[in-house]
Amino acid sequence: MHSLHFTGETFSNGLRERDFTVGGVPGVLWSPASGAGRAPLVLMGHGGGTHKKAPAMLGRAHLLVTGAGLNVAVIDAPGHGDRPRTAYDERQIDAMQRAMAAGEPVGPIVVRYNGELARRAVPEWRATLDALQRLPEIGAGGPVGYYGINMGTAIGVPLTAADTRISAAVFGQFWPESLVELARRITVPIEFVLQWDDEHIPRQAGLELFDAFASTRKTLHANAGRHKEVPRFEADSAVRFFARTLSSAGPTT
Amino acid sequence: MHSLHFTGETFSNGLRERDFTVGGVPGVLWSPASGAGRAPLVLMGHGGGTHKKAPAMLGRAHLLVTGAGLNVAVIDAPGHGDRPRTAYDERQIDAMQRAMAAGEPVGPIVVRYNGELARRAVPEWRATLDALQRLPEIGAGGPVGYYGINMGTAIGVPLTAADTRISAAVFGQFWPESLVELARRITVPIEFVLQWDDEHIPRQAGLELFDAFASTRKTLHANAGRHKEVPRFEADSAVRFFARTLSSAGPTT
Repeated sequence: MHSLHFTGETFSNGLRERDFTVGGVPGVLWSPASGAGRAPLVLMGHGGGTHKKAPAMLGRAHLLVTGAGLNVAVIDAPGHGDRPRTAYDERQIDAMQRAMAAGEPVGPIVVRYNGELARRAVPEWRATLDALQRLPEIGAGGPVGYYGINMGTAIGVPLTAADTRISAAVFGQFWPESLVELARRITVPIEFVLQWDDEHIPRQAGLELFDAFASTRKTLHANAGRHKEVPRFEADSAVRFFARTLSSAGPTT
Repeated sequence: MHSLHFTGETFSNGLRERDFTVGGVPGVLWSPASGAGRAPLVLMGHGGGTHKKAPAMLGRAHLLVTGAGLNVAVIDAPGHGDRPRTAYDERQIDAMQRAMAAGEPVGPIVVRYNGELARRAVPEWRATLDALQRLPEIGAGGPVGYYGINMGTAIGVPLTAADTRISAAVFGQFWPESLVELARRITVPIEFVLQWDDEHIPRQAGLELFDAFASTRKTLHANAGRHKEVPRFEADSAVRFFARTLSSAGPTT
């Protein structure tokens, strides 16, 4: 069992931010600066090529903490952020960049590489969740959500299929090939985001992954626009989703 | 030009409710009971077999008026509510009920009948909007939205294609056959609701209608469940959609 070690703490804009490590994996925990009592926890998975404190993570954490009073944790994925890249990571990144530059489909490379990252990341996430649940402001048995798009979905779908502590999830923008079988085992409420005009992920492929979830409560949000044009209001929608799925006393909207 | 005649007024739960007629067509206008100043107007189209004050209309009006400070108007569709049915209406309703009882597809009958209702309703809606915009609390040139699912979409798509005063719309749950060509002319922001497991409207048919809108800002909300199982939180989402699309000073979420 890995312990959680806090390595730094700051306060700003209503957020308490604590850096930590669990078994050598670096992470960050955001909580209400007011130090309110026990609250549900949302695990967030960052996108490919970014890291635990990328602007998208900070922005979503701010909405979740100040808008719904939740705790939010992110860890660096293998080969990302403060973690070293292996030779395998470097080869995959080179292959993606060559495909992009040549205008070739990047999907098959991303699916294979992110599948490998998920195999490494899922046990790291589970050990991190074990350690976070030993903190008094989170606690064992409290509601846990998962929020990750793109690579965050490639890691989050296997994590949610494997760990019954996760009781609600926001996913989106990934290819179905490697995830459909796992999605068929997932029954918790799902909000799924895709771009209607995604230049990387074919529309039918995105719809196929949404369709695969066994959840009786699942919602697809498909917005006009290209891969990187997800509207900002989808982050607000995710906050409301977690407020209604993680907390019986939360808002019903 | 038809005048608007108010025929009744009540106040309850923060709503001012005024009955009116325009050219003999009965309608209802809900506004903030506080009598706040000028505000955007949302036209709502009711579903087939219901009427202007059906519970769904009252519920949505309450959210729009008290949640976003908007004015909301509904008129009875031809052959609905306080309006007489023609012999044609009676024959179509009989045909729908026979198809339902026999377990046969109701789509072709609904598409044809609602198309006919739309031909009658669009000029009624435009005359009603003319008259409503002469009220000081609405005004000519102010933002106008349209919100209607099912039959409300069968009438609302031709109305929105015909009337450039409508600058944002929530549609959903209708067959594409009669509406796709009109939807291709619509460029205003759209939120579109469909049920992923709709037993009447095939999934691909619903997606085809969403796809047809020319709008660069459009969002599909597809929820797991059957035709009548649209989650209540979609009404809250529509309020936020109109708050951000009809009012530059409104919430951004």
